[in-house]
Amino acid sequence: MQYCDTLIAPRWCVPVEPANVVLTNHAVVINDGRITDLLTLADAREKYQPSAFIEKPDHLLIPGLVNAHTHAAMTLMRGLADDMPLQAWLRKGIWPAEKRWVSAEMVRDGTELAIAEMISGGTTCFSDQYFFPEIVAETAVDLHMRAMVGTPIIEFQTAWAVDTADYLRKASDLVHDPYADHPLVSTCFAPHSINSLSDESFIELRVLADQLDVRTQIHLHESAVEVATAVEETGKRPIDRLRELGLVNASLLAVHAVHLSDSEIELFAESGVSIAHCPHSNLKLASGIAPVAKYRDAGINVAIGTDGAASNNTLDMMSEMRTTALLAKATASDAATIPANVALRMSTLDGATALGLAQEIGSIEPGKWADLTCVDLNRLHSQPVYDPVSQLVYTARADQVTDVWIAGRHQLDNGRLAHIDTDSLLQRSNEWRDRFVASQH
Amino acid sequence: MQYCDTLIAPRWCVPVEPANVVLTNHAVVINDGRITDLLTLADAREKYQPSAFIEKPDHLLIPGLVNAHTHAAMTLMRGLADDMPLQAWLRKGIWPAEKRWVSAEMVRDGTELAIAEMISGGTTCFSDQYFFPEIVAETAVDLHMRAMVGTPIIEFQTAWAVDTADYLRKASDLVHDPYADHPLVSTCFAPHSINSLSDESFIELRVLADQLDVRTQIHLHESAVEVATAVEETGKRPIDRLRELGLVNASLLAVHAVHLSDSEIELFAESGVSIAHCPHSNLKLASGIAPVAKYRDAGINVAIGTDGAASNNTLDMMSEMRTTALLAKATASDAATIPANVALRMSTLDGATALGLAQEIGSIEPGKWADLTCVDLNRLHSQPVYDPVSQLVYTARADQVTDVWIAGRHQLDNGRLAHIDTDSLLQRSNEWRDRFVASQH
Repeated sequence: MQYCDTLIAPRWCVPVEPANVVLTNHAVVINDGRITDLLTLADAREKYQPSAFIEKPDHLLIPGLVNAHTHAAMTLMRGLADDMPLQAWLRKGIWPAEKRWVSAEMVRDGTELAIAEMISGGTTCFSDQYFFPEIVAETAVDLHMRAMVGTPIIEFQTAWAVDTADYLRKASDLVHDPYADHPLVSTCFAPHSINSLSDESFIELRVLADQLDVRTQIHLHESAVEVATAVEETGKRPIDRLRELGLVNASLLAVHAVHLSDSEIELFAESGVSIAHCPHSNLKLASGIAPVAKYRDAGINVAIGTDGAASNNTLDMMSEMRTTALLAKATASDAATIPANVALRMSTLDGATALGLAQEIGSIEPGKWADLTCVDLNRLHSQPVYDPVSQLVYTARADQVTDVWIAGRHQLDNGRLAHIDTDSLLQRSNEWRDRFVASQH
Repeated sequence: MQYCDTLIAPRWCVPVEPANVVLTNHAVVINDGRITDLLTLADAREKYQPSAFIEKPDHLLIPGLVNAHTHAAMTLMRGLADDMPLQAWLRKGIWPAEKRWVSAEMVRDGTELAIAEMISGGTTCFSDQYFFPEIVAETAVDLHMRAMVGTPIIEFQTAWAVDTADYLRKASDLVHDPYADHPLVSTCFAPHSINSLSDESFIELRVLADQLDVRTQIHLHESAVEVATAVEETGKRPIDRLRELGLVNASLLAVHAVHLSDSEIELFAESGVSIAHCPHSNLKLASGIAPVAKYRDAGINVAIGTDGAASNNTLDMMSEMRTTALLAKATASDAATIPANVALRMSTLDGATALGLAQEIGSIEPGKWADLTCVDLNRLHSQPVYDPVSQLVYTARADQVTDVWIAGRHQLDNGRLAHIDTDSLLQRSNEWRDRFVASQH
């Protein structure tokens, strides 16, 4: 008998890679934070002596969900400005509130609320884009959450930085140390959008990104207005401009990408660009519906993100996964497209690929980090079960997530957040709401 | 002090009528199954001595949700046939399974599972369309659920009836007795779709419906294929044919109505036809997205339904309400359309109107039945609360429904179904699954 840290025996296990496999009577073995074995339960009982043996007789075990795009701290502005289109929402709702209140403290509390919500809903990794990224990173480490922390880069002064040089210097500092080779946190550059930087700044950013070997994520072709405005002001579509600046390559994560021409789809596929699809946010801001089946058919890697809670209004990847599958069918006029197993893959392994982490997370394979999510299907609205992957994608809600492990640590245990004081968190969230409300009057 | 049965004191109360009102520090008074008062909590404490005084300090009280279209018994086929377009889904997935297994027993168990799911998710009334409607009605009465039971009418033999005359006779019997004036159950005629009946049968149905004063609901213009096929076979669009047959009037509930021409929209508005919008089902079967903002702007009453669980795959009106608001924005290219309070109205009072029950349910007004739903907003993903209606529509999940009253009876009590044995129900559901699976091989 071999010692192991944890042995999980769910009713069903879907490793995602290999594709289209549903395992029953299997067990996942965890040691030192990593998956070290995946074998039949009978073999596991003979081979291993686990420190913790966790049976989940009504549950489906999947790789932890990867939220490919969010602004975690904005959970504090959840519902502050609804039913407004993108530009009005930014200019009248969000930016004035941010100008008044964004600070290290606000980012810490907002990020904690976001992480608590995400872990509760089965998300084990998020890609973030917000001010005070060093606080986002610290909070993720403190709470043992996996994060790709994007460092914001714009040309105007905020509470975090004064000018582009300052943004880039702070971004570089964060990449160097202490996150150059961290087990949980990685970093990337996150210029806000195409109209927020000059050509010179983009070139500087690209040179730095190449030197530091970091990826870049940017809001791109989110709305028709964004594209039309760029054409009017610069004579170029945003993607054309980025391509000329040398930024359209396999290190790019294009966030939203709702409006792409056929040649832009081809360019993205050839260049290895990934897309972060944020369906609820795109609907809510009336930006449109990205034709993700078409993107995938062209060979583009499409991940799924929630966007920030100020435009969604949750960070619920279970719900985003379902909506991705459903919207794709109506948009493609093809009920067979993005079947349940593909929606799950997009929410896990394809998300990992988009963040450059496919070697480390995104599937239940020995050698990868033990980022795992366990979903209880024994609920009225998920019964009876013909196919657990169908019930996961088309019926399951975030509250059915009972257990979550991140790098082997049991973060959600039978529905309870093991390491977060939610009472204190909710109290601080309400204090921030009171401040935001006061400044609106 | 006056005696009363129940006094509910939630943190927030949204009566829906009058519109755009959020009450705090108010109480709802229930007597003999009906709402008898809505007043400030201070006044209520002075005036009433309740048998049950129920405080809900973190909760929003709303009218019970009205599911304007479903096939309750089909919950037993949840996930049996996914990722298939409407016609293939019917012909290859659903109809063969139904032909083999539909029976009074199957309808009883399936309807019970559906009612349990619906009550758990805040739905207090559903409009049904399935075989053995007398069993649907009996089950609703047994479980104290409000239902509009549609009697199916088609031209081929099923386990329930042999020919059109038989369908119409059985339908008439059900309308007469015992549901002519029942506190919970009403009935209507439910011809399946335009191509399932001859002109003669439709005329017979109309004459009977007029005599009996019952409403008619029918799947109508659900897919582009349905409309094109009808034009090919009869030279007429389905709505044209129904109009010529005298069925386009204020007693008609048009289910789906995804594909309407401008003149059809005008006709529906002028005729007082209601629409049951089923967004998830329309997406999943790739039928399209109904432009409901356009319909409402034209003056059509638009209700919301889940459709059956075989094409959704849940009966979750909370989720349907959110998706209605989000899809409408993207479809209309207007983020301001179908704001949260309108989505709530469509899910409650407009649903009641569509079923001819607006005088009895759909809002929290003295005199109406006490059909009430209480939603806990004190969850991480619904916090902080700026606007409880925004948090309800854009963040809340069905699991946040903690309490439900139907005609004053406390059916869901702190998250527990008070009068349904869910263990037995899940066991029977699994037995039905085994039968369905066995017949597929």
